[in-house]
Amino acid sequence: MNVAQQRQGRRDGQGALTPGPLFILVEPQLGENIGAVARAMLNFGLSRLRLVNPRDGWPNPAAIAMASGASPVVDSARVLDTTDAAIGDCNYVLATTARPREMLTPVLSPRAAAEEMKVRIERGETCAVLFGGERAGLSNEDAARADAIISIPVNPAFASLNLAQAALVVSYEWALADGRASFPSDLDEEAPAPKSDLEGFITHLFSALDEAGYFFPQEKRSVKERNLRVALTRAGFTEGEIRTLRGVVKSLTRR
Amino acid sequence: MNVAQQRQGRRDGQGALTPGPLFILVEPQLGENIGAVARAMLNFGLSRLRLVNPRDGWPNPAAIAMASGASPVVDSARVLDTTDAAIGDCNYVLATTARPREMLTPVLSPRAAAEEMKVRIERGETCAVLFGGERAGLSNEDAARADAIISIPVNPAFASLNLAQAALVVSYEWALADGRASFPSDLDEEAPAPKSDLEGFITHLFSALDEAGYFFPQEKRSVKERNLRVALTRAGFTEGEIRTLRGVVKSLTRR
Repeated sequence: MNVAQQRQGRRDGQGALTPGPLFILVEPQLGENIGAVARAMLNFGLSRLRLVNPRDGWPNPAAIAMASGASPVVDSARVLDTTDAAIGDCNYVLATTARPREMLTPVLSPRAAAEEMKVRIERGETCAVLFGGERAGLSNEDAARADAIISIPVNPAFASLNLAQAALVVSYEWALADGRASFPSDLDEEAPAPKSDLEGFITHLFSALDEAGYFFPQEKRSVKERNLRVALTRAGFTEGEIRTLRGVVKSLTRR
Repeated sequence: MNVAQQRQGRRDGQGALTPGPLFILVEPQLGENIGAVARAMLNFGLSRLRLVNPRDGWPNPAAIAMASGASPVVDSARVLDTTDAAIGDCNYVLATTARPREMLTPVLSPRAAAEEMKVRIERGETCAVLFGGERAGLSNEDAARADAIISIPVNPAFASLNLAQAALVVSYEWALADGRASFPSDLDEEAPAPKSDLEGFITHLFSALDEAGYFFPQEKRSVKERNLRVALTRAGFTEGEIRTLRGVVKSLTRR
């Protein structure tokens, strides 16, 4: 964690150093959805949540129940009366919304938005993403407070992402921008066998096939050999797999 | 839609030409989650769903209720008894799973997976993504049938994406690979005003500020002018915004 990130963590006034963007839910309705947003966030390493005027009051048992293992995100959520109060300490604010009419705010893809926030957070800026309530989304008045709009590229014929789904997409892109990677494959730790091992197996196989009459008539032999060699090479067998395959050939020729 | 995509659509035996990957849910439990997967898919333009041995039978009213506007995806879902039956006509199969132990299957990020499927589908291949049930995910036996594993880069300290969330991430990356874009900003259709308009406004403003004594003492004038000019240039005001701002200055100087 660099100095800028530490500064960011302190600036939020929380014990934990959590350098990602804040998520701000404006007038959310169902506690279940607040809990689902918390889960989406924590799955991708985000934990700072603010709520503007939640309909059913706060704390909300349904939010805690739905959050399950992400309940610390819900427990530490800050509740504010207005959007202005919620973004007051933020340097850069994005709004997720369906296309606002006649507003000259720049629009970013979720990916571009995450990359922009990453750069700003590394510099020590506090970044926030606004999400509207379930029924009507963000008002144009709230969206007008944002430096840019995040537009999730949904199917125009069925554009009905819910609150937690929108939060999931933004969280996922944050994790990628923040350098979180897929797990490695066990295959990454196993090189393809040296070619001499592969060749040893192929020689073994071809010899067994010769005995079995597979290469008859001889004029087709070189094409058959080449095709088999190409297919067997493409898989990139490991040393262990080559041993397994030699066992297979041995077993089949034991008859 | 190119010929390969049309072929793909026909191959699936459905009336509609839906060229994206198939999603295959293996032993899903709650109908609600099947419906939520359908919604996630259709939000990003996917519609072909197969179910392997759903716990609560089929059709499932809870799935249809949760799918809401995406119920056609649920209605047209095919139900099969085994994973092998569900992937039998697929050329390329990916599995979403937590890290499988001791399996030498390649691992792809959701992004790389979507790009790979896009290339293959354009060629006319049928591609499918396997998702496991809510309780235990995909078995290693099912994952071993896949050409590659999709690994969603979750927070190792809280890795608890549910079925519909995993489907959402894969669907979202599919939409991007398929070229779906964020909506344009109204700003894209409005160029910044010609510099002569901006200059006209700045001249107007500076003249008003002059009269108000803002530039006193004169030795600070050039720095103050330059700083104001830089700040006002950075916003890239449109012609309409320049007109608005001239109105603002006129209004303020009317006193």
